[in-house]
Amino acid sequence: MPMGGAALDLTGVPLPDETLATARQSDAVLLGAIGGYKWDNNEKHLKPETGLLQLREGLKVFANLRPATVLPQLVDASTLKKEVAEGVDLMVVRELTGGIYFGKPRGFSSNQNGEEIGFNTEVYATSEIDRIARVAFETARKRHGKLCSVDKANVLEASMLWRRRVTAIALEYPDVELTHMYVDNAAMQLVRNPKQFDTIVTNNIFGDILSDEASMITGSIGMLPSASLAAKGPGLFEPIHGSAPDIAGQDKANPLATVLSAAMLLKYGLGEKDAAERIEAAVLDTLSRGFRTGDIYSDGNTLVGCKQMGEEVLKSV
Amino acid sequence: MPMGGAALDLTGVPLPDETLATARQSDAVLLGAIGGYKWDNNEKHLKPETGLLQLREGLKVFANLRPATVLPQLVDASTLKKEVAEGVDLMVVRELTGGIYFGKPRGFSSNQNGEEIGFNTEVYATSEIDRIARVAFETARKRHGKLCSVDKANVLEASMLWRRRVTAIALEYPDVELTHMYVDNAAMQLVRNPKQFDTIVTNNIFGDILSDEASMITGSIGMLPSASLAAKGPGLFEPIHGSAPDIAGQDKANPLATVLSAAMLLKYGLGEKDAAERIEAAVLDTLSRGFRTGDIYSDGNTLVGCKQMGEEVLKSV
Ligand SMILES: CC(C)[C@H](C(=O)O)[C@@H](O)C(=O)O
Ligand SMILES: CC(C)[C@H](C(=O)O)[C@@H](O)C(=O)O
Repeated sequence: MPMGGAALDLTGVPLPDETLATARQSDAVLLGAIGGYKWDNNEKHLKPETGLLQLREGLKVFANLRPATVLPQLVDASTLKKEVAEGVDLMVVRELTGGIYFGKPRGFSSNQNGEEIGFNTEVYATSEIDRIARVAFETARKRHGKLCSVDKANVLEASMLWRRRVTAIALEYPDVELTHMYVDNAAMQLVRNPKQFDTIVTNNIFGDILSDEASMITGSIGMLPSASLAAKGPGLFEPIHGSAPDIAGQDKANPLATVLSAAMLLKYGLGEKDAAERIEAAVLDTLSRGFRTGDIYSDGNTLVGCKQMGEEVLKSV
Repeated sequence: MPMGGAALDLTGVPLPDETLATARQSDAVLLGAIGGYKWDNNEKHLKPETGLLQLREGLKVFANLRPATVLPQLVDASTLKKEVAEGVDLMVVRELTGGIYFGKPRGFSSNQNGEEIGFNTEVYATSEIDRIARVAFETARKRHGKLCSVDKANVLEASMLWRRRVTAIALEYPDVELTHMYVDNAAMQLVRNPKQFDTIVTNNIFGDILSDEASMITGSIGMLPSASLAAKGPGLFEPIHGSAPDIAGQDKANPLATVLSAAMLLKYGLGEKDAAERIEAAVLDTLSRGFRTGDIYSDGNTLVGCKQMGEEVLKSV
């Protein structure tokens, strides 16, 4: 189903009703990266990004899981020193349908001096924090039992409530170790020593920033999938990277993040763990056989395009 | 004059009126890092951080300059690979008295379901954006003529106005090359290739996050000073780092960020460029002579405490 730029060109809106309806009736949704220069200066309601936000809201996928793992085969692709990057394996649990992305009031207006202002509202309700906290604690429990909640509770009331509720929910998970960190410090610690993190939980905008930073630490943003889950109904699965309009049509993009998003879809969306693991193993095998797209290329490997990379993964299945 | 935790202990408030009045009457203000475990659970109006925000607001220091430079002597202290870190020399110009830090309405309330909510307002007026943009263009002009404005204009109205105004002000500075970047991408690019940046301008909260990230990229947050400037009246000069309560009283802290803040005070606050350069040269000389506090220590150098580091700088003057 079309959405984003494709839908704008076809139908004039970034998320046609039919696309949302079909997505809702599906068992799971696999999404391609959206956006491009052509629509960059569109008005807000005609931006591809607006379609994405409408889809997330429409499917109520409040929990966005963004793994950032340094694969042994790709440790050289990171800009971090080997001893810092090696072994990084963290998961960002980002709140996806609340906070400043959706908060009201928002818009343009004028102040007492008659000047134009632009404004947005960062807002969280108890139940929104509680449910993302529970997803994060469950996630941490299945990983290494450590959860770091990131906020700006020394300045923002929305963060103070966040910290209070996450601390309260922690009582339900005595086996998980909870710590708190300010967002500025977290941005720093991800560069200083990313291995200190297991699971991170944070709000929509901080999660946007920190998950991109974390993914770059792995050196392979072109490799990273994500899952966005609702309380019930289909999940949304998409690569973390954008649409990379600078290399569109050149057969250069790394398809592995999308392939691995399909694996996450099988695992989290359809409960097909074995099938998911077959795909993940095929991707690792392809990398072990030395195939690399440009974004993860390093000396001694074989540079391939998007299409050939896909074919190599098929051979590895 | 006391402020932060010291003022709380002495007077019960984090910024006594007398401290603000004296600061206002001064030619420039040098600030020590604030905060500590003791006051971490205080209510908002009794947090050390609240005193800092009141001081910034009281002095109207809207322009926060945060350099992040990788010194040749310290390139090994970065967790980034040498070829990535070497030569990084960027300046973050952060808006400091507006945005979500100060926006109203803010607080706690309840929603239609009777649930508690915490909320803040991200808001910028034209004149606030224009004046920080001008400082940033002037700064870029004195550096390498490249300004990157960071926002989230694909989602937030406050950022759309930001981008529109920065673009408008650019017409006054045809000699400066202006680019725009989304904040999530900027967080990524700082890790991927920090050398692409010369001057960055951004809002209060994004500046908080990105300047900490940038400083860690230099590997030496204990080295980095900052200047906060008003349209008129005294500037506020402080290290970027926090108060590091984990090592308080152990003579381990790196004093160089404060020493270099004093140099910025001389240069930007008092127009004493020569004196500033003498201090900066003394710091570099001390590093060249191999003295290092723990945070920047690497093999083959001489590990010293805070006090001795100060004495070595004096010898280098
Ligand atoms: C495209 C944009 C609206 C989106 C976001 O900010 O959530 C993207 O950056 C992401 O992280 O999925
Ligand atoms: C202490 C805190 C209020 C402050 C901020 O968020 O501005 C600090 O992180 C900084 O960057 O100076």
